[in-house]
Amino acid sequence: MPEVRAYAAQSESSGVAPMPIPRRELRPDDVAIDIDYCGICHTDIHFVENDWGGTLYPVVPGHEIIGTVTAVGSEVTGFKAGDRVGVGCLVDSCRECASCDEGLEQYCEQGPTVTYNGEDRHDGTRTYGGYSEHIVVSDRFVLHVPDALDPAAAAPLLCAGITTYSPLRHFGIGTGHKVGVIGMGGLGHMGVKFARALGAEVVLFTRSQGKVEEAKKQGAHEVVISTDEAQMATMAGQLDFILDTVPVHHDLNPYLMTLKRDGTHILVGMPEPLDPPVDGAALIFGRKRLAGSLIGGLPETQEMLDFCAEHGIVCDIEMLDIAKVNEAYERMKKGDIRYRFVIDMRTLRA
Amino acid sequence: MPEVRAYAAQSESSGVAPMPIPRRELRPDDVAIDIDYCGICHTDIHFVENDWGGTLYPVVPGHEIIGTVTAVGSEVTGFKAGDRVGVGCLVDSCRECASCDEGLEQYCEQGPTVTYNGEDRHDGTRTYGGYSEHIVVSDRFVLHVPDALDPAAAAPLLCAGITTYSPLRHFGIGTGHKVGVIGMGGLGHMGVKFARALGAEVVLFTRSQGKVEEAKKQGAHEVVISTDEAQMATMAGQLDFILDTVPVHHDLNPYLMTLKRDGTHILVGMPEPLDPPVDGAALIFGRKRLAGSLIGGLPETQEMLDFCAEHGIVCDIEMLDIAKVNEAYERMKKGDIRYRFVIDMRTLRA
Repeated sequence: MPEVRAYAAQSESSGVAPMPIPRRELRPDDVAIDIDYCGICHTDIHFVENDWGGTLYPVVPGHEIIGTVTAVGSEVTGFKAGDRVGVGCLVDSCRECASCDEGLEQYCEQGPTVTYNGEDRHDGTRTYGGYSEHIVVSDRFVLHVPDALDPAAAAPLLCAGITTYSPLRHFGIGTGHKVGVIGMGGLGHMGVKFARALGAEVVLFTRSQGKVEEAKKQGAHEVVISTDEAQMATMAGQLDFILDTVPVHHDLNPYLMTLKRDGTHILVGMPEPLDPPVDGAALIFGRKRLAGSLIGGLPETQEMLDFCAEHGIVCDIEMLDIAKVNEAYERMKKGDIRYRFVIDMRTLRA
Repeated sequence: MPEVRAYAAQSESSGVAPMPIPRRELRPDDVAIDIDYCGICHTDIHFVENDWGGTLYPVVPGHEIIGTVTAVGSEVTGFKAGDRVGVGCLVDSCRECASCDEGLEQYCEQGPTVTYNGEDRHDGTRTYGGYSEHIVVSDRFVLHVPDALDPAAAAPLLCAGITTYSPLRHFGIGTGHKVGVIGMGGLGHMGVKFARALGAEVVLFTRSQGKVEEAKKQGAHEVVISTDEAQMATMAGQLDFILDTVPVHHDLNPYLMTLKRDGTHILVGMPEPLDPPVDGAALIFGRKRLAGSLIGGLPETQEMLDFCAEHGIVCDIEMLDIAKVNEAYERMKKGDIRYRFVIDMRTLRA
């Protein structure tokens, strides 16, 4: 198998460093992609440091990939060399279950194949992500990136973007709705942009007074300091939906109080036990709902990219060289990034 | 003010005992009702014993009331003396908010007036419930009881019935859905009957092997012993909805696993913090929802009674004399009732 240059983590404490990885020969449905940009998601750090267990070293992180097609397999008709394309969190799925049939590959009943630290469904090889000069992906899992989008700033749309866009669309959020977004990070700032573009009135919840002006600049109509009980009280019974992007434990109960009857609190950030516990009364007295949502399927991801092109939406990013990734991780752990790092992968090929 | 005979609790440990209570003069919209039957809800015990705090003694419990109209106020057109009627958990609301406008008085934004231990919105007097020979209620909160229904067995429909019917209807449960009902008590057995009558395939979850045959008799297509991990595993990803009637702490996570993608777990039994905590991952990986639902509004309660008449549905009851109520409480605490006690209130007038 030919090899390509990549950055991989070799152990829990090594950070990422240069390492060649194998590249598979093109199958009939494959698209070969030279990677131009790759966003850094918090998930990358969790995998590199094995925070969730299950990391298989060496791991090449990165699932916010923008690149250029270099070649396609014999049966590929939707892509050609030179096309600007994207790859997100998924690179394959069973393609046979009800979820796959509906284009909701993220909920594949057999479990989708994830872009890195996954196992190829055909030959059992490891999947390697976007901190690499090149990737080969089956055409169903490759997105067209509209010319109108800045390609570097579009990279985080493949994870942070679709993770917030999908629930807003699935739950029918739009004009006439008042939507709360919790958290003003990579996901949160995209949630604000999308909710605003969909026509909703947007309330941003943050613990930080310092983010108030910035949130309004991003499109929030109102900003509520979530630690201020008086401010939270003014929002009681006001919201149709809440998009909760916070990835660490937090008390959901004060937010449930801000929902109207039949309102829905949507978790996209924290796949862990909800501690402190949710109050059943907050759901029962008001027929409220607590829901979850996971990234998005391929058709909806394409729709999201097209929506972004139409509405002039991209992620706010800071670009860096591949050699600076470990420094970026340290800054991300301190929350020192507005709002997403994107690696200029051309610095790896240079 | 004239007085009527009733059974009231005077303190947390007194149980209920005979005590005269005031009866208000008829207002223009009032319906005067001689009470024939009153179901015993677990809530009655909680109020009598002040389990939730806030009980104002003396308290006359009872919000599953079936009676006969004896007189109506000057503006009442929908009821006349001799009509068989019902009164449930609510006797008034603000009648002005969005929820009241939609006939969802249980979610009244000002808080509805509950049938006992509440405060009359006009004169500030205490509300007294159905363990009484007589009650006076505003016509909007009085239900017509179809002749086809056995009146004693219809009493628990006003709480246990509507509490299970309302969410099944609200969430559109019917033919083509597979619905789990957790718990085989007063609410649970009604949930099974309604889900079956609405056309769903019904799975009853119980901890008790002894309830398997009984659950099938009530209409369950399948019964799963919830403490048997192997049985629970067979149900993984099978259910569209779960109606959770369990009023004590239980682990929701094994049940969330039995939901399909986009499935909804509906709490009607436990208005307390959800301990052990719900796993956010169970919601996110499957876009599942955890919802709550509270009794039902007046129009839907009437619809439910008519549905019951059409489908031959009533509650399974054990009738008792008013003098035996305290004994019934003791039996209910031990779970020794299938499925609802109903007081023959004519024994109070005798």
